[in-house]
Amino acid sequence: MLRLVPLGGLGEIGKNSLVVECGEDAVIIDAGMMFPDEDMPGIDLVIPDFTYLKQIAWRIRGLVLTHGHEDHIGAVPYLLKELDMPIYGTRLTLGLLRNKLAEHGLEGRELREVAPGMEIGFSEMKLRFLRVCHSIPDGVGLAIDTPLGTVLHTGDFKLDQTPIDGEITDCNTLASLGEKGVLLMLSDSTNAEVEGMMPSERAVGEALDELFKCSAGKIIVASFASHIHRIQQVVRAAERAGRKLAFCGRNMLGNVNTAVRLGYLELPEHLVVPFDELPRYRRDDLVIMCTGSQGEPLSVLTRIAYHEHPFIRLTRGDRVIISARPVPGNEKSIQKTIDQLFKCGAEVFYEKIAGVHVSGHAAQEELKLVLNMVKPRYFVPVHGEYRQLWHHARLAEEVGIAPGDIFILENGTPLEIDEGGARIGDPVQAGMIFVDGLGFGDTADVVLRDRRQLSRDGIFIVVACIDQGNRRIMGEPDIISRGFAYIPEAYRIMDEVREELVRTLRYCIDEGISDWVVLNWHVRNSMSRILFEKTRRKPLIIPIIMEM
Amino acid sequence: MLRLVPLGGLGEIGKNSLVVECGEDAVIIDAGMMFPDEDMPGIDLVIPDFTYLKQIAWRIRGLVLTHGHEDHIGAVPYLLKELDMPIYGTRLTLGLLRNKLAEHGLEGRELREVAPGMEIGFSEMKLRFLRVCHSIPDGVGLAIDTPLGTVLHTGDFKLDQTPIDGEITDCNTLASLGEKGVLLMLSDSTNAEVEGMMPSERAVGEALDELFKCSAGKIIVASFASHIHRIQQVVRAAERAGRKLAFCGRNMLGNVNTAVRLGYLELPEHLVVPFDELPRYRRDDLVIMCTGSQGEPLSVLTRIAYHEHPFIRLTRGDRVIISARPVPGNEKSIQKTIDQLFKCGAEVFYEKIAGVHVSGHAAQEELKLVLNMVKPRYFVPVHGEYRQLWHHARLAEEVGIAPGDIFILENGTPLEIDEGGARIGDPVQAGMIFVDGLGFGDTADVVLRDRRQLSRDGIFIVVACIDQGNRRIMGEPDIISRGFAYIPEAYRIMDEVREELVRTLRYCIDEGISDWVVLNWHVRNSMSRILFEKTRRKPLIIPIIMEM
Repeated sequence: MLRLVPLGGLGEIGKNSLVVECGEDAVIIDAGMMFPDEDMPGIDLVIPDFTYLKQIAWRIRGLVLTHGHEDHIGAVPYLLKELDMPIYGTRLTLGLLRNKLAEHGLEGRELREVAPGMEIGFSEMKLRFLRVCHSIPDGVGLAIDTPLGTVLHTGDFKLDQTPIDGEITDCNTLASLGEKGVLLMLSDSTNAEVEGMMPSERAVGEALDELFKCSAGKIIVASFASHIHRIQQVVRAAERAGRKLAFCGRNMLGNVNTAVRLGYLELPEHLVVPFDELPRYRRDDLVIMCTGSQGEPLSVLTRIAYHEHPFIRLTRGDRVIISARPVPGNEKSIQKTIDQLFKCGAEVFYEKIAGVHVSGHAAQEELKLVLNMVKPRYFVPVHGEYRQLWHHARLAEEVGIAPGDIFILENGTPLEIDEGGARIGDPVQAGMIFVDGLGFGDTADVVLRDRRQLSRDGIFIVVACIDQGNRRIMGEPDIISRGFAYIPEAYRIMDEVREELVRTLRYCIDEGISDWVVLNWHVRNSMSRILFEKTRRKPLIIPIIMEM
Repeated sequence: MLRLVPLGGLGEIGKNSLVVECGEDAVIIDAGMMFPDEDMPGIDLVIPDFTYLKQIAWRIRGLVLTHGHEDHIGAVPYLLKELDMPIYGTRLTLGLLRNKLAEHGLEGRELREVAPGMEIGFSEMKLRFLRVCHSIPDGVGLAIDTPLGTVLHTGDFKLDQTPIDGEITDCNTLASLGEKGVLLMLSDSTNAEVEGMMPSERAVGEALDELFKCSAGKIIVASFASHIHRIQQVVRAAERAGRKLAFCGRNMLGNVNTAVRLGYLELPEHLVVPFDELPRYRRDDLVIMCTGSQGEPLSVLTRIAYHEHPFIRLTRGDRVIISARPVPGNEKSIQKTIDQLFKCGAEVFYEKIAGVHVSGHAAQEELKLVLNMVKPRYFVPVHGEYRQLWHHARLAEEVGIAPGDIFILENGTPLEIDEGGARIGDPVQAGMIFVDGLGFGDTADVVLRDRRQLSRDGIFIVVACIDQGNRRIMGEPDIISRGFAYIPEAYRIMDEVREELVRTLRYCIDEGISDWVVLNWHVRNSMSRILFEKTRRKPLIIPIIMEM
């Protein structure tokens, strides 16, 4: 039996991970992370729950990485801390992963380089890699031959016919796979809502030329640190405009170094200005490329916008180009950064008003083209929010795949295929693991729930001493609140609250309630009631009642 | 001297309010509210700081409302609680305001109905109203004649040539004002980033017809409760499709009633199905119009999406149309709602994939047209985030207004004009007042800062009893945390933290530190240090140290 177990990336953008099992072989495709959304205060990143992998550990033959983006490799260090296994990836992907593993002190793991056209055999599976074009170089898709047929995973792709590095998605191999017959295809759904065909990455180069040409000041370009193609285009545009180029931001510098060293980025040495020599150049001679396209609080661009960067200052005539799309949830912080950059006197160009970004994922016509070439027996849309998977399924129907042969899966819900057909299997454990500060997995739902309540209505701490023996309250009970209400304004209600507290304590003493659980319950209850009545707020209430 | 004092709406979308002063006359234009963003946990709504108005109370001749949207009338009840004054507005605007005032127990205030063409005279100012077309009927702009010249405030507008109610923006009056000479124009900047001309609201009607026609199930349309034009189009599309219509959502019902009663919405009685009779109709006979286009947690649409609505259930074949644009910051919650609706089996149509919304604000070509007609001496872009004001200023430059005659103002920064010219005046108090639960103005910045810290890393309460006289710590110090870390996992560090606490208390006792402020500082400091060291988190720390 062939089993497909998605552990992440379905019904969400991020933390892509999928297990393909056949007989005694199991292969993991990607182990990505996800950025937390606003429902998860204080969480740094989210990774898939790998519990299921521990259960099938003895069958795992390896982890295969399709490309080097965070949502595909970001969880690898956390996975390796729990389970060791060989990792397969192309040269650039492994190069980027190495930097990441070094940060986690995980050097010396077994990384096996693969390339398009290569084959890797296990007892019941054979992996073949094929070139796909995406917004990072050296991406691959994966054909897995099994006794039941071939499984094709496209990876993240677009059908750009004029990519920056000339490496187009290998449609010929897709076509020949289609001719031989594909049992199951998994394909990238990110842009399944977008009509037509995605423009070529080259379109951004032309827009950059236009903006570089007529600028009297310095030019700052912000993009994703991993978008090597975009960085290449900025390099070429800077060269054409006769400007020097400086890189700024730890991640971007790390990626640029790796990409140059491995031959994925052409960067003429004479072009690059070391950071500390920036002041020696005229501002109309400079392009600065940095991170911060998502309005991240500590990024270079945000620090520049808020005058917090040690030596990059914006003045009238400077141009800032935000060459990226807002990741959902970041819209507001990006817009705030843009406003702030305008206030610094710069001209700001961003997706809404200039063609300075195109996506790296295929749109509807491309997705249908690939579906028609591959003609899979079964189809599973992957890599997308539910609405994107839904639209991708609809596209598959349009090109003639029977609705019953299309499966919109959820994380943790396996698809099982045998001679009798395909069906949904019993769910396995899957979900989110929160990485927070140094720990991971230690921020459980109950903590998040508390944080949400704290952030909404604050906290209310009630401190009192009672002397059960002599049946009296000792001293004045104390009330401490944080995030609840501005105390000077709230004095008048605090007196009433304190009276109510004394009444409740009095009642408990009189009734002989000495069990702490019950006593705390009474206090919490009466405080909660009176606070809601007086303020319509529900702070978290913590009674600290001490016995003498 | 003519003075323009913006109290809200500049550098933000929402809480529009502006004072125009001349001699002893002062007129307030609009008093709107703003929805809080994710930086303001637990805040229900935000209104302008009206302190300045209290300072000039004796000169205020009235509040003039341009139209009935929340960002223009939402703060009126809060303003009236502090200052009484006559309120001028058109029939529908006052109708909507009346509902709002009734909720606040503010019946019987002085509301004076105005209409386009009407004039109102004060000692140094004369107000004239002119029709503008916007996404709510009965909107007006305002020409204010003063001894120094005419001030024109466009209000929110677009140049839709085929509006739903036939009421186009009065370009002829704009032109004749322009011919006579306008000293200062204030104009709507919401869509100053958008190229071209905004499509007519009628385009939405055609899209709705298309979607209504070929649907086998019931149709749910979500939009803003105040978008009477959109509601009118849904009414007509339902009629054309031969379907019955039900309204759902308290605000929408209230607005529909007011608009029908005042003659701004044509609603054939035979079309409307009372809510409790819904089950008596076949689902392909029904259109349900409701609120929730922003993914608001308690709205009708969200409750339907999460199976929490008492009797509206979605099944395969039903269609949901979200006929609105995401307000910035709401993207993620809207997308979650859409995903959830797809999961219910419905087909969902939204701005990204279908033409089911157009904006009510003018785009670049319309803004330039109005600038060219009015040819103002001075120009102030209003109603927009900074980047939108910036682009509007750029448009004004393009049509020939000198850069020195264009002023991008901030809330609280007055523009002063006299015979000698225009200049920026001394700032007045302006800002945000947070309305939270029953109170308003009592949630100060310090409370918000605490809430943000609480939501990020939780709270950490340290309770200890010391006996200064006998120089000893009484019993075991207690540690209570909420939202900090999942305690079972954190046991090992808690012991170390407790030891550190005892060490710190010991130190304070030994050093004879008896001042509570200093003692608390020592405890907070040492706890903060060890917690950050062990967990990289910075919870709010509250020491509760009691003296025996």
